[in-house]
Amino acid sequence: MIPYVRSLWYMAAWAEEVPSGSFLTRKVLDQPWLIMRLEDGSFTMLADRCPHRFAPLSRGRREGDSVFCGYHGLGFNALGKCVHNPFGTMMPPGAKVATYPILERHSALWFWPGDKEKADPELIPDFSFVEGPAVHQRAHLTMQANYELVTDNLMDLSHAEFLHDKTFGVNGALFVGRHAVRVDDTGAVWNNWDMDASTPPDWAKLLLAGDEKVDQWLHMRWHAPASMALFIGMAHSNSERTRLVVPPMCNPHIITPETSRSSHYFYTSEPGEEAAELARRVFVEEDEPMLEAVQEALGDGDLWSANPVSLPSDAGAIRARRELMKLRGLEVD
Amino acid sequence: MIPYVRSLWYMAAWAEEVPSGSFLTRKVLDQPWLIMRLEDGSFTMLADRCPHRFAPLSRGRREGDSVFCGYHGLGFNALGKCVHNPFGTMMPPGAKVATYPILERHSALWFWPGDKEKADPELIPDFSFVEGPAVHQRAHLTMQANYELVTDNLMDLSHAEFLHDKTFGVNGALFVGRHAVRVDDTGAVWNNWDMDASTPPDWAKLLLAGDEKVDQWLHMRWHAPASMALFIGMAHSNSERTRLVVPPMCNPHIITPETSRSSHYFYTSEPGEEAAELARRVFVEEDEPMLEAVQEALGDGDLWSANPVSLPSDAGAIRARRELMKLRGLEVD
Amino acid sequence: MIPYVRSLWYMAAWAEEVPSGSFLTRKVLDQPWLIMRLEDGSFTMLADRCPHRFAPLSRGRREGDSVFCGYHGLGFNALGKCVHNPFGTMMPPGAKVATYPILERHSALWFWPGDKEKADPELIPDFSFVEGPAVHQRAHLTMQANYELVTDNLMDLSHAEFLHDKTFGVNGALFVGRHAVRVDDTGAVWNNWDMDASTPPDWAKLLLAGDEKVDQWLHMRWHAPASMALFIGMAHSNSERTRLVVPPMCNPHIITPETSRSSHYFYTSEPGEEAAELARRVFVEEDEPMLEAVQEALGDGDLWSANPVSLPSDAGAIRARRELMKLRGLEVD
Repeated sequence: MIPYVRSLWYMAAWAEEVPSGSFLTRKVLDQPWLIMRLEDGSFTMLADRCPHRFAPLSRGRREGDSVFCGYHGLGFNALGKCVHNPFGTMMPPGAKVATYPILERHSALWFWPGDKEKADPELIPDFSFVEGPAVHQRAHLTMQANYELVTDNLMDLSHAEFLHDKTFGVNGALFVGRHAVRVDDTGAVWNNWDMDASTPPDWAKLLLAGDEKVDQWLHMRWHAPASMALFIGMAHSNSERTRLVVPPMCNPHIITPETSRSSHYFYTSEPGEEAAELARRVFVEEDEPMLEAVQEALGDGDLWSANPVSLPSDAGAIRARRELMKLRGLEVD
Repeated sequence: MIPYVRSLWYMAAWAEEVPSGSFLTRKVLDQPWLIMRLEDGSFTMLADRCPHRFAPLSRGRREGDSVFCGYHGLGFNALGKCVHNPFGTMMPPGAKVATYPILERHSALWFWPGDKEKADPELIPDFSFVEGPAVHQRAHLTMQANYELVTDNLMDLSHAEFLHDKTFGVNGALFVGRHAVRVDDTGAVWNNWDMDASTPPDWAKLLLAGDEKVDQWLHMRWHAPASMALFIGMAHSNSERTRLVVPPMCNPHIITPETSRSSHYFYTSEPGEEAAELARRVFVEEDEPMLEAVQEALGDGDLWSANPVSLPSDAGAIRARRELMKLRGLEVD
Repeated sequence: MIPYVRSLWYMAAWAEEVPSGSFLTRKVLDQPWLIMRLEDGSFTMLADRCPHRFAPLSRGRREGDSVFCGYHGLGFNALGKCVHNPFGTMMPPGAKVATYPILERHSALWFWPGDKEKADPELIPDFSFVEGPAVHQRAHLTMQANYELVTDNLMDLSHAEFLHDKTFGVNGALFVGRHAVRVDDTGAVWNNWDMDASTPPDWAKLLLAGDEKVDQWLHMRWHAPASMALFIGMAHSNSERTRLVVPPMCNPHIITPETSRSSHYFYTSEPGEEAAELARRVFVEEDEPMLEAVQEALGDGDLWSANPVSLPSDAGAIRARRELMKLRGLEVD
């Protein structure tokens, strides 16, 4: 199995998923965890595994900021320290629950599974737009595919012309676009499609004069391990992108490994039940079956050992994979 | 996988589970077996696997004390010897079905999967109380956890204060008890909780004067591999346990590995549908989910290699594990 | 896992199972494949796996004799050659889908998974009787057992006296028959049961005088890997098999590995819904549960390593296994 890069921020949950006075349980990086919202509004992330006989702590109960095992009653505080032993006043030596640093940033909770010393909050990728003026609905689902396969999918939006031709109505615009990959100074890989002077989609024609052309763009930004942001825009042609036809759109596509073969997918959709259902349907009915099938074809094998044929449109996905390989190499050494 | 200790008596079934003129099929120690009640009232235990093409003999038919394979018709007697070949009078050489010594003792059937020479019936632990004056209902279920995890559960009754706080109403009595572990001269490990001069449970107050205190005890006896008996008592305080408040109770908790990750659980409950349902519910709804979760957390790994934190209340469970390790060591050498 | 013999013809499907203008998808020899009927009436068999990102091509669409991947749009012709790249005019180097030679012969499609140079159509076993005067219904099912276990079943028809005693009404005729195994000059192994001057089954008595005896025979022909044909006959006794009581019957029993633990079963049944249902029922309700149980007992192990007891009636099955071992040995060397 390919090791996870550990000294990175991973998204654990939307803050609103974590109830007060109870727990959210979530498996990430192959292990079960328990996330608690503390009384002071901060969060803690504890291994969902009592160090005594390995009962899941989530089968116990919460009291204040502590959690009590439901099997033999040991109590642990938010730092994972044993603070209660029902059959004695001595705390058993070594009774400590593993923790990960976790913090809230722009409605999302981020955890750091690597060396705690290096857990610099400044390294969390900027998803401030999630709280921007266009407030969207935040959502979460899991997909039965490795997170790098989900990344491949998102970093090669050319698939929308085929897999989502019924739902996104991209109408072949990508076929005539310019495609470029670049790395910015935050280490992000950008995979950009730009379709200048292109035919607008039907819904936009009402906002345009006659057969006016538009400049459209789809820019996907990737930060390791698999935290992506999609920037979509449409401007009147020959306006240097200053005169927008509609407000720009930004969407998070943040992926966290649940296991080596399944992934958490954090995303947003436009307001309203219908939009939420459309987004869910595209992910669950169009992307997921394809990704599951690819996962099934690859098994536990590495993509590269299956000798994939490469296309120019893969450049962004391949660049992201290479960045991750570089980071993995640093940690394995 | 941790090997089973083979030169031991294991419980196979309650005698009444085995029908006349047919078979009981049961998987034990990872292999399928067939148990027959013979015409003379004794029992036989045959591998449920024809030596010809490995069809389960239980898919065949029984005639007298013999079983006939349903695939190609070979017949075997109660000793596993081939006694019928439909296409010839010669019995095929080597055509023998494996058997285990099995015998009935106090309503239970015990089998010996090890060296037959050593199968001394005197070594069967004493469960004669099952047929004592307080006739209880005998029952069987399977749990999705390794038999040693079930033993841990039973040899550390402190869990009742948490896992069974709604059903057993132990009301914290164990918190004030004395706890001791000893080994008797039959090799049994006893894990004893004694709560002298303790507050009686609500149901007992009707039998007592005013705010009289009682001496209560919970003594669990373990024989390898995992055959346990629980002795429960309540006496008027300062009576040296001679004046009992209620008749003493004895309950079998006999565990036999089905596979390395699942166990047969043989137990009894007090008379009546309701009592049977309560016992089943405690095992199936309270113990089993916890044990399954612990099994899931440990996977196929050994408990010790997961570095468990130890508590004084574990002493009995750990002693039982050590006895079994000792026996295992003798067989592996 | 025991390797498949590759330089052999295997049956893939009945030709009528393959729709026009679309695909049949079928897993054989552990891999998913896609079978297309081409516009000229011939067939092609392509790996159901795009060489770009391993999406199943069957999730795409067909156009003419080409198939287009539903993930990123690459198109491949009937030879597996990449003929369409939606984002450029250059075909990506190495973009080739694996193919197997496949051809139609007497209503069945045969593929050759080995060295293409050796794929001589003359080596396809003769199943011309499938299109003979007694037109039967062709059918397909899968069984959860290794193909050699299914072969064992078919090459030892003595099991019919036990497993099918309710459905086939063989009435013990095999018990009095002569049994012989021979290899013919096409390399076929014949497993022949001949019951001369035997009591006819009830249904045949109406066609016979008084208590006339009949000569009956059941001859099973096997070609590697597991393509079998059953020839059944009944003649008036002392007629040297020239005066038949009923027309002779020939049935295909052609087995192709789906995986190492499951098999495709191609067969025919007599005309009519009822006959189809009877055949299906015998295979699915009588043979399959027994074969699944044997598979479960053996696991992934080899039959021989489980030390089976051998009976004279196994001679044909054992001979077929030996022939296959010989072929396997030639390919492994």
